[in-house]
Formats: sequence, structure tokens, C-alpha cells
Amino acid sequence: MIILGIDPGLRTTGFGVIEKHGNTLRYIASGTIKTGLEGALPPRLKVILKGVSDIVAAYQPGCAAIEKVFVNVNPHSTLLLGQARGAAITALVGADLDVAEYTAVQVKQAVVGTGKAAKAQVQDMVARLLKLPGLPGTDAADALGVAICHAHSMDALALIGALAPASGTLSMKRSRLV
Amino acid sequence: MIILGIDPGLRTTGFGVIEKHGNTLRYIASGTIKTGLEGALPPRLKVILKGVSDIVAAYQPGCAAIEKVFVNVNPHSTLLLGQARGAAITALVGADLDVAEYTAVQVKQAVVGTGKAAKAQVQDMVARLLKLPGLPGTDAADALGVAICHAHSMDALALIGALAPASGTLSMKRSRLV
Repeated sequence: MIILGIDPGLRTTGFGVIEKHGNTLRYIASGTIKTGLEGALPPRLKVILKGVSDIVAAYQPGCAAIEKVFVNVNPHSTLLLGQARGAAITALVGADLDVAEYTAVQVKQAVVGTGKAAKAQVQDMVARLLKLPGLPGTDAADALGVAICHAHSMDALALIGALAPASGTLSMKRSRLV
Repeated sequence: MIILGIDPGLRTTGFGVIEKHGNTLRYIASGTIKTGLEGALPPRLKVILKGVSDIVAAYQPGCAAIEKVFVNVNPHSTLLLGQARGAAITALVGADLDVAEYTAVQVKQAVVGTGKAAKAQVQDMVARLLKLPGLPGTDAADALGVAICHAHSMDALALIGALAPASGTLSMKRSRLV
């Protein structure tokens, strides 16, 4: 299963592609989509759409995950970030991918083991977990972290499936874990 | 020239399609795209993407315009609205349409003649300008208003083009008018 992780932003959208094979995670690709600092919003969202679509076409992920974003102290920034995230999600669902959402705390918990980890710790652990020769940039590291978080979440869901009695009397809302 | 106007929202996205022929505006279609009240964000944005794409396929607009949204008192609502607007813009630019943006004040000014008009006045004037047999719903009326505003703006740009000296010594930033 190839997983695409996205760390959304209007200026810079990070992406990370990993392959999950049983318990093993393998690095495939990562990087950023940059829209530039200026210009009207629609052409900038088009850059995000094209960038995400190109990545999906190149690596053919089976599923995607994207980081939930926080409300900024500046409401105007919140609005811009929301629109950028909306563009990235739209590109993913337009490619018929299921899109899971994780908070930054969930990603840090999955990658570093604590939801209060610093950005540098995320970069370091992502590099270790994926046996990278060097540290990825922060946006790419966050995106790879989202993909790793989703891989772990898939394992947890599979475990619940294995533990559930075959008769099906146990009712679990799997979606709560995602 | 067929113009598509969009009034973005997460629950309800209004759309309005008009034809501009010289100084005459003709109503073609209007309505709403509804995502429902519940569920995860990605499938809801997919509904907006599919709805806008279907409208573009059905009416083949030559350009599009979308209302600028305001920052809500609730930052979480601002974020959701931003993502919905991002999805609508992404659907439009994905169909290779140029997308103009207008504030609600600009739309009211263009349709009613004052930026402080009430929603009911917008509905009423949209119905008069497009010779509709009845009042459109508020979301559809706002979307038709955005399309009318863009039609007027195109006239203003054409006028500037006609007034500008052929030698091109007059430097105007046309984008300021849009």
C-alpha cells in the first residue's frame, strides 16, 4: 500500500510518499509544492491542484492523509490556509482517493511518541524510521509524518478487526480511531 | 460570453449562470450544491467539486467569478468556509476557467447600486435585471449577483481599453478594477 501524506499550506504544501509492506515502511519520495508569495488566489490554488495531481499520477498512492490545520491568531491567515487545504483535499478526492485527517498532535504522537515533540524531533524520527541519508525539510518531514501516522492507524484498525469476535456481536465505531 | 457566478459555502454553495450579449444579460440557470450537515470534510468537498464540475460541463461558461468571503466571528467556521471556497475555486481552475473575485459590497453595488443593500434587495434586483418570473433563493441570487457584477466589470475594462491611447503611453493596472 502506497500512502501519500500532505502538510497543507498556501505558500508551501509538503508531500511525502511511503510504502507500507506489513510492518515495514519504505520511503519513496517527498518534497514541496510552492505557489510563490504573490498573485491572486485562484492561480495559486491551481498550482496546488496541479502539484498534488502530478504527485498522485507519478506515485499512484492507494490512500492519502492530510494534517488538520489550526486556527491562526490572524483570521485572514486562517482563511487563506483553509482555502489552500481545501484545494489540496479537492485534488485528492478528485483523484478518487480516500483522505484521512490527523492533528499535528496525533502525528507527533505517532512519529516521536509524544504529542509535544518539537519540529526538529519530527524531522529526526522521520529520518530514522524511513532510514533516510539526511534530514528532510520541515514541510516534507511533516508530510512524511502524516503518512507514517496513517500507516500506524491502519495497523490499529487491522488489530481491532483481528480481535473482534467473528460472530460480530461487538460493535465498534472504527472511524473514531482514524 | 457565458458567465458562472459562485457563492461559496460548506453546507450550501450557490451557483448562477448568465449570458452576456453586448449590454444584455440573459438568465440561463441557477441553484445550489448541498453537501448535507454531517460527515467528514473530504467527502463534503468532493460533493462541491463534483457539483461545480457538473455545472461547468453542462453550461460551458467562458469565465467564472466567486464571492470573497468574510472572516467569521467563529474561527472554526472561518476555516470550514475557507476550505469550501478553496474546493469551489479548485474545481473552477481545474476546468481551466479564469476566476475573478468580488466582495459582497462590490456585488451589492453592482446589482442594487449601494454596497449596504439587504439580501432581499439583491434577490429583487437580480430577478428584475434577469427578468425572472419569481424571486431566486438567497444563495442562488447571490451567485447570480456575482455573475452580474463580473459582467459589469468586463464592460468597465472594455471601456478603459477603448479610452486608452493607442500609442500605449498610458499605464493602467487593469487588475485593480477586478
